[in-house]
Amino acid sequence: MKLARWAAEGRTVNGAFNGYELVGTDDVRYNPEEVVWLPPSEPQKIIGIALNFADHAEELNLAKPELPAIFIKPSTSLIGHKGKVLMPPGSKYMHYEAELVAIIGERCRAVKAAHALDVVAGYTIGNDITVRDKIGKYFRPPLIAKGWDTFGPVGPYMVTPDEAPDPANTTLRTFVNGQLRQEGNTRNLLFSLPELIEHISMIMTLEPGDQIWTGTPKGISHIYPGDIIRIEIDGIGALESEIVLGPEL
Amino acid sequence: MKLARWAAEGRTVNGAFNGYELVGTDDVRYNPEEVVWLPPSEPQKIIGIALNFADHAEELNLAKPELPAIFIKPSTSLIGHKGKVLMPPGSKYMHYEAELVAIIGERCRAVKAAHALDVVAGYTIGNDITVRDKIGKYFRPPLIAKGWDTFGPVGPYMVTPDEAPDPANTTLRTFVNGQLRQEGNTRNLLFSLPELIEHISMIMTLEPGDQIWTGTPKGISHIYPGDIIRIEIDGIGALESEIVLGPEL
Repeated sequence: MKLARWAAEGRTVNGAFNGYELVGTDDVRYNPEEVVWLPPSEPQKIIGIALNFADHAEELNLAKPELPAIFIKPSTSLIGHKGKVLMPPGSKYMHYEAELVAIIGERCRAVKAAHALDVVAGYTIGNDITVRDKIGKYFRPPLIAKGWDTFGPVGPYMVTPDEAPDPANTTLRTFVNGQLRQEGNTRNLLFSLPELIEHISMIMTLEPGDQIWTGTPKGISHIYPGDIIRIEIDGIGALESEIVLGPEL
Repeated sequence: MKLARWAAEGRTVNGAFNGYELVGTDDVRYNPEEVVWLPPSEPQKIIGIALNFADHAEELNLAKPELPAIFIKPSTSLIGHKGKVLMPPGSKYMHYEAELVAIIGERCRAVKAAHALDVVAGYTIGNDITVRDKIGKYFRPPLIAKGWDTFGPVGPYMVTPDEAPDPANTTLRTFVNGQLRQEGNTRNLLFSLPELIEHISMIMTLEPGDQIWTGTPKGISHIYPGDIIRIEIDGIGALESEIVLGPEL
């Protein structure tokens, strides 16, 4: 199943995408071009992992972490498929970061890697938008780099594990205005998804809807207002976002 | 008003503390010794500020930040007054950090400092528990230092602004087993609460219940299982927690 959330006619609808239409849990059908796609879960916590691909750590000239370099992205940063990312005025450029996102299905703590995929409700695509020009080089990125409202495009929907690709072997690609800019495969994650879940759930309880963003491979580049970012993950689909200049704050 | 949340007889109750009793919104009275105190709000986001007192930055040998060094503490770290802090097995010691906590009352973004206190619903006491032995020196603390379940004692209640002390001039004191270990006054914050709210709300939308932990002064010291930590803030009250050794994970 491809489980989705969307807004239409003044309300939020839960349902599934059948490849052509969005079908609400009340069996009403919606044209996916005519709704506002919402993030596929409403997380209490969004856990990001900095530098979880060796080639990305190299392109940033940063050492590979010995433990997963986890950080929290605020839930207010999330936007759905086809949403607009607001570039803060005064930033020179931003970066996209294509990521496989696992969504947690049950409240859990101290989950061992061997059983970790059992707590995953499904998979989606995340774009961990980053303003890098203001921040210099940081092992653990500050909130002023990744915490802005709209800096967390995610979706379009959550693919349940029975239909999802192998989280340890799936290809991610980012296209900017149709041009391929980033490509990688989750087989090159420094810490696999089960290892991440073991580490994170050692520290904190995970709750249904919580999201684990597994990290981005090499291939980041500057993006600017007007750009359309499309991230594809094999076996999941494509997440599209538009960059626009945000208002003065 | 001193607004509180507590658990009793299998349910969660909202109400107020009158100095002697807890009075539920249904007018039922509870003995404060016989309930489980809960955190006074259920935040989407808990924003902490590293190194927001010059004397604390000095004791850690870290430079004063040019911008507020904000980080997110997971909501799963919160516990109420008289709760138990679980020390992770394998840690040698932990630190308390006494902090004035502001609780947000309304959804807001891009709030200017001049009006920032208008969005505060009230004030409480936080203890930003930190395992420092594992982490070395970090400008922005990692989740493995501050993100553990139970590492966020907060409460006992939220004091509404009409009864609360001046957030720019109130004294914090930490006692360990009755002995005074830490003392400071919020007049020495590097970034005042209004400045923090302006900075944070520039980046992200704040929501009702969100907590801003304003930073801790000089005077951290090691704590161990068996210790009772009591943090007093003038005009608010006292938050007590017990340190116990947590289970193997």
